[in-house]
Order: sequence, then C-alpha cells, then structure tokens
Amino acid sequence: MSSSLRVALVQDRDRGSAHANLARIEERVAQAAAAGARLVLLQELHNGAYFCQHQDVREFERAEPIPGPSTERLAALAQAHAVVLVSSLFERRAAGLYHNTAVVFDADGRIAGRYRKMHIPDDPGFMEKFYFTPGDLGFEPIDTAVGRLGVLVCWDQWYPEAARLMALAGAEMLLYPTAIGWDPRDEHAEQRRQQEAWVLSQRGHAVANGLPVLSCNRVGDESDPTGHGPGIRFWGTSFVAGPQGELLARAGEVDDELLLADIDLARSEDVRRIWPFLRDRRIDAYGDLLRRFRSP
Amino acid sequence: MSSSLRVALVQDRDRGSAHANLARIEERVAQAAAAGARLVLLQELHNGAYFCQHQDVREFERAEPIPGPSTERLAALAQAHAVVLVSSLFERRAAGLYHNTAVVFDADGRIAGRYRKMHIPDDPGFMEKFYFTPGDLGFEPIDTAVGRLGVLVCWDQWYPEAARLMALAGAEMLLYPTAIGWDPRDEHAEQRRQQEAWVLSQRGHAVANGLPVLSCNRVGDESDPTGHGPGIRFWGTSFVAGPQGELLARAGEVDDELLLADIDLARSEDVRRIWPFLRDRRIDAYGDLLRRFRSP
Repeated sequence: MSSSLRVALVQDRDRGSAHANLARIEERVAQAAAAGARLVLLQELHNGAYFCQHQDVREFERAEPIPGPSTERLAALAQAHAVVLVSSLFERRAAGLYHNTAVVFDADGRIAGRYRKMHIPDDPGFMEKFYFTPGDLGFEPIDTAVGRLGVLVCWDQWYPEAARLMALAGAEMLLYPTAIGWDPRDEHAEQRRQQEAWVLSQRGHAVANGLPVLSCNRVGDESDPTGHGPGIRFWGTSFVAGPQGELLARAGEVDDELLLADIDLARSEDVRRIWPFLRDRRIDAYGDLLRRFRSP
Repeated sequence: MSSSLRVALVQDRDRGSAHANLARIEERVAQAAAAGARLVLLQELHNGAYFCQHQDVREFERAEPIPGPSTERLAALAQAHAVVLVSSLFERRAAGLYHNTAVVFDADGRIAGRYRKMHIPDDPGFMEKFYFTPGDLGFEPIDTAVGRLGVLVCWDQWYPEAARLMALAGAEMLLYPTAIGWDPRDEHAEQRRQQEAWVLSQRGHAVANGLPVLSCNRVGDESDPTGHGPGIRFWGTSFVAGPQGELLARAGEVDDELLLADIDLARSEDVRRIWPFLRDRRIDAYGDLLRRFRSP
C-alpha cells in the first residue's frame, strides 16, 4: 500500500447562498476526485457569508442540526466520489445552544465524526463568542479511510496545546478549516505580519509534532452587514505543509482555487526518528500548563 | 522610559580552548556594549568544542561549579560593560551530577539566576543524555535590569510547552543559546528543511505567546573526536524575532557574527490585545498534556 495521499483544499469566496455554495462545493469535489484526491478539506462555515462580523439573532437561522440537510447533501457527495470530506457547519444543538462544528464524512458517505471548535475568538469583525458555545467534545481525532484526522478549526490554529493533544491521540495529520483575513484599514506591513504569523503558527505545529498540516482558508472581500465596520478581506493562502513544516503547496491570496498536494504519510515516521520530540517531553514539569497564568 | 531595547547575539566558532573562547567573548561583549546593546546572548556551551559528538568520561573535565571560574570572569564582563549577559556552561553540581546550564548575569555583574536545560536530546552527533542530567529547576523566568527573561536551551526550542510555561510565568522574551548543525552527509534539500524547521519552530513560539524570541547558534565545522562520525556543520543563522514571529535580524550560516537588533518591549502588549490567545486557552481540556501519549 502506497503511503502517498493526494489531498485537495477548496479555497473559495462566498457565493451568496447555501445553495450556491454547496453547488460550487459539489463541482470542486468532483474536480478534486477526478484529479485523484482522496481527501478534500473545505473552508470554515463554507455554506455562507462569514456572519460573525456583527451580532444579530437572525443569523442563527443559518444553523442546522447534525445530521441535517447539509450533512445529507455532503454525505452523498463524499460517497459519490469516494472521498473523505472535511466540512464546517453552524450546528444547532438545542434552542440557545450552537456550535462551530467540523463534520467529517468517510469515503462511504458515513459521518465519521465531528469536532466542535474548542477555542472561540472574539474581536472586532470576528464576534464568535455571541454565536458559538465552546466545544465540549475535547481534542479527539477522527478515524477515516485515509487515516486518523486531527481536525481543528480556525482560532484553534494559534494554540500549540490543541495540535499537541491531537498528536498525542495518534492523529496522522492536522486539518484546519478557517476564515481569516485583514482589516482593510491596517497598513500593508501589519497585514503581512499577520498573514505570515498565521502560516508560521501552523507550520510550527507541523514541526513540533512531526506531521502534515492542511489549512483551508476563505478568500474575497465581505462587507460588514451593519455598514459601520470596514469589512474583511479574507487572505486565502491555503496551504499544505509536511512534517518538517516544509511547504508542499500554497494557494494565492485573491482568487478561489482548488489546491492539490501529495502528502507522504510514511514520512512522519522517519522525521520523528531523527527528531524524537515525543520521547523527551517533561510531563513531570508541565503541570502549570493547566493554569490560566503562573503569576498572581 | 523607552520600550526599545538593543540586543546582541554572539554567533561564533569554537576557538580551541576556554581561554581563547572567553577572550573572544570579552571582545564581542565590548563591541556589543559600544554599539548600545544592553542584553547580550551567547551560544550554547560557548567555552569549548561541542563535545557531545562522542561519549568520553574525560570530557567531564570541562565542567565546573556555578559559581566558579567562568562565572567569575563573565560576571566581571557584565559589570564592566553594564550589560545583562546570558551565558551557557557545563555545570558540575556533584560527582556524577552535571547539567547544561544557562547562567544569567545582571548588568551589575550579579548572578541573576540560572536555568538547567530541561529537555535533553540524544541522537547521533548529539549524545547529550550521557553528559547532562535533565534540569530540576523547572521553567522559571529570570528577572534582570532589562526585563524578565525566559531562558531556555537548544533542544527546548522544539517544545511549545516550554515556551508557553515561560510566557505564563510572565517572561517578556524567550532566549535560546543553542548548538545545532547539519550532518554533512545529508542531502542539501534535507539540510534546508531542518534549518527552516528550526527557525519555524522558534518563530512559532513568538507567535503563540506574543513575545520576542532571540536564538544564538554556533557556527563552523567541528569534527568527531573519534574520527568515525561525519562531524557537524553548525549552521549559525542566529536570529531575533518580534512578537508576531516577524524576523528583526538574522545572521549568516558560515561566519562568526555579532548580530544586533532593536526589540520593542511595548509591542507585545499591542499584539496580545489584537490576538488575545491567553484569554481563550481551554485549561479545562488540556489535562492530557501531562500524559506521555493518549493511546495505549
């Protein structure tokens, strides 16, 4: 059995409705499968606009149960093309209880598992704490036909703890559906620092844990529905890194793109033999990682 | 009081004896102080060759107590130039008990504190587990005239846990004396991946924790004393990164170099306000970070 796995990332702009976005995803997954991809990663909240630019109770209408209409359609898509599909949905769990949830479909269309975003951001333009209850399923990888997937979502990408916990649970790669972009008012140098920091952080997780990282980001301009904010320019730049953090593929920052890459799942074993970081962790001295801060 | 701090990193090759290396360090610290540096970082085990390429009990003769002859000389140096000096010594604590220890001298020459390397590597060319007992002082920053320093050493640089614990204890920057290089037999592409991974990992710590990172590495070729191994080509590339992981200065990979950079200690506050990662850590869900592995 070959250790090479072709993966595809669907970097896209919002196409105005769940119907239009799902139709586009169906087109892209078909293209990915035709190109030999066996794993397809979608961007965060791919069914619609990134609605967290404002706080409006009407936005909860976007949420749906899991399983529900979107998972039915995505399950059929995964099955039709025999691909493992990593999606990102606004989950309605109960009245007043919603999550930002990644749903993984196995190559036979079955729901292989779900991950509820654990770290929830909240800052101007990204007011997620209003909408999403922090996940309560922990950091658990999801087993699929292409391997054990460490699926995390967006803000999680800044937390080495999340990546490490997935690796310790045997994840063979990390996958991040994400939606991150610039405040168009920021100066160019600051925008570049932010974008580069975002890439660095995730490539760093690849290095620290000796496994591939796939990150699929949204692209395009979305305005603030209130008309008061500057809107967001999503910076695309979806990428795939290998287990030494090396870039295997990287998308542009302006256009929608189907990004393909081949990852070598056997390479992690080699990399971890020359750099056996897991061997030397000082678990006797890490207790304070469970504290908020170590000073008063 | 200005928040700008000029720092200097002394990237050097082994000059054959502790006497010659310390004389060179005295020269470099004088140059750094003359250039306005108030903090000087030396490379790992700067007093001599990187002796861990082989296992030989005679190498323990290099070790010395702390305080001891080297700390006396380095204390005088720090005091003479009124700089905070971060050094790296082979500590003899007792018969059969040795550590790889960073000693920090305050600008008045006093020993401000010490850090005993917590993560100890052991792989071909870097057989440190023979020489160094893992540190027992934990991850505690050291207070100095230029701020609270999170001093770590070499192999620690691969562990996000170490960086995080220093940040949680209020460290204002991370500093790594290090000695890392290539196996000259490795192919060029592999050498580049390793070097880039090393930079990525540490820049990733800057991003995750919103603080500057200073890393000072050895340079030059050192042969295997047994004549059996390929030797090590230390890759230099010492660097200073800001709190978004942005590179502020980076040395070459072949020559000795006094690397200067200005870091803005107030910048971390701004960066952590726009990206408040510490706010959202899921300390309720990090318990398994204290386990060796989460599978059987």
